[in-house]
Amino acid sequence: MTDAGSKLAAALAERFGEDFAIPQTAGLDALARMADHRSMRAYAPREVPASLIRTLCAVALSAPTKSDLQQADIVIVSDPTVRAKLDEWCGENPWVKAAPAFLVFCANNRRQLRIHERHAIAFANDHLDAFFNAAVDAGIVLSAFVTAAEAAGLGTCPISAIRNRAADVSALLGLPDRVFPVAGLCVGWPAHPGGISPRLPTGLRVHENRYDEGDLDAAIAAYDERRNRTRPFAKQRDPARFGTSPAYGWSQDKARQYAAPERADFGAYIRKIGFRLD
Amino acid sequence: MTDAGSKLAAALAERFGEDFAIPQTAGLDALARMADHRSMRAYAPREVPASLIRTLCAVALSAPTKSDLQQADIVIVSDPTVRAKLDEWCGENPWVKAAPAFLVFCANNRRQLRIHERHAIAFANDHLDAFFNAAVDAGIVLSAFVTAAEAAGLGTCPISAIRNRAADVSALLGLPDRVFPVAGLCVGWPAHPGGISPRLPTGLRVHENRYDEGDLDAAIAAYDERRNRTRPFAKQRDPARFGTSPAYGWSQDKARQYAAPERADFGAYIRKIGFRLD
Repeated sequence: MTDAGSKLAAALAERFGEDFAIPQTAGLDALARMADHRSMRAYAPREVPASLIRTLCAVALSAPTKSDLQQADIVIVSDPTVRAKLDEWCGENPWVKAAPAFLVFCANNRRQLRIHERHAIAFANDHLDAFFNAAVDAGIVLSAFVTAAEAAGLGTCPISAIRNRAADVSALLGLPDRVFPVAGLCVGWPAHPGGISPRLPTGLRVHENRYDEGDLDAAIAAYDERRNRTRPFAKQRDPARFGTSPAYGWSQDKARQYAAPERADFGAYIRKIGFRLD
Repeated sequence: MTDAGSKLAAALAERFGEDFAIPQTAGLDALARMADHRSMRAYAPREVPASLIRTLCAVALSAPTKSDLQQADIVIVSDPTVRAKLDEWCGENPWVKAAPAFLVFCANNRRQLRIHERHAIAFANDHLDAFFNAAVDAGIVLSAFVTAAEAAGLGTCPISAIRNRAADVSALLGLPDRVFPVAGLCVGWPAHPGGISPRLPTGLRVHENRYDEGDLDAAIAAYDERRNRTRPFAKQRDPARFGTSPAYGWSQDKARQYAAPERADFGAYIRKIGFRLD
């Protein structure tokens, strides 16, 4: 196997705890780098050039877009006053403040409505689909940005806490109706190599012809165990409420995380900025 | 400038009609390839090896995921009977039938609920956020798959018509409640080089500190014109309803497209499979 092929196999083995038959293919370097993705929350004290950020934005905006509607926007936050507010509002993620660069990926359904006005043609799709398509477009662009940034040697960390105060963020960034934040993104030069976060086995997530999760409970238990062998959780969430568990792992961590309401006002905000979710 | 730098500059210039100051950076090859993204709807008569598809799925599932929840799944459609149904249901996209391989990217909020059951901890976030996060995760994975596939030399075309009959697709693929299709994806070896689809100027979509779309109408008019210079629309939508326009372009095409209801039942389907969208 080529060097890139070996790297790809090693990254996927660490990620999924599985052996993959790596095919002979072009682009193994790129695949190996993508398989090696890692979230980065610590940054070297070195600026990210504005021209690099601009180029990465353009590369990301070259990604596919639903019906060619181009419903994703990016806000580059460079003003320290604006940044300080966002840092504060994403409070439980101290790496937000630490990141040399910070972007906000937004969904934008506003332009579509303006296009309809422009041609005096009624928009006949003001239902859940309009919200959904714009949100997914933003996810597509975010994903492409992360891949491009990592290719350039940068580290990133998406921040969904940006939506904890979606209306405030929206006012701060001057987002008009029908434009909403989907995720923030910390960007900077990695302070250390970081690590690959293990993922659920592909048997749970890649299906052939019919959805088949097999014995989901057993697979989750095995994943919790595998993950704890290499990257155990440093602390347990909310022990005051849930106590301390000897077998604390991913599934318990996630259950505890979503046992507290988060963004319960997100739907009201989305409706307030003009979306119907019928 | 390096060869890759020149390629990147050329692709972005064609895409956005703008000159970018390409910085010196690692990964210029990868950025150039991503900037050169093109949807591909015609395929060489040559199979895509199953091992390659599986590897690309694993690479795509290595992309970031909201709160580490891993809420995206992929269904590989290899059974000709299943495929024939999907081809039929995505009827207005003949390239679906033509594609050697076809995948369905799904959002999966089911595992999260199962994790809560497993630990007997109530899920306190059964509102719009749950639907949103799973949908965006699927978009992130779709985007990563497309980038990875293009690195391997493949061409792809996302198919949102898969949701035109979401309930039928769901039954066909055996998707349980809280799992829904987000997009199909045609995959195959390109039959021709294809072309770069021009996009709106980045001035409309990349903002600094505050959203600023400037003179949106003028920018859209200029974009319609630029696009028509290189890739004019071969035919006009629904001339019976709208007549024939001498200045037909992107904005008119999109307004006409969404003048007819599409997926008006998507919200009802999403609620039926268990989501609350409050």
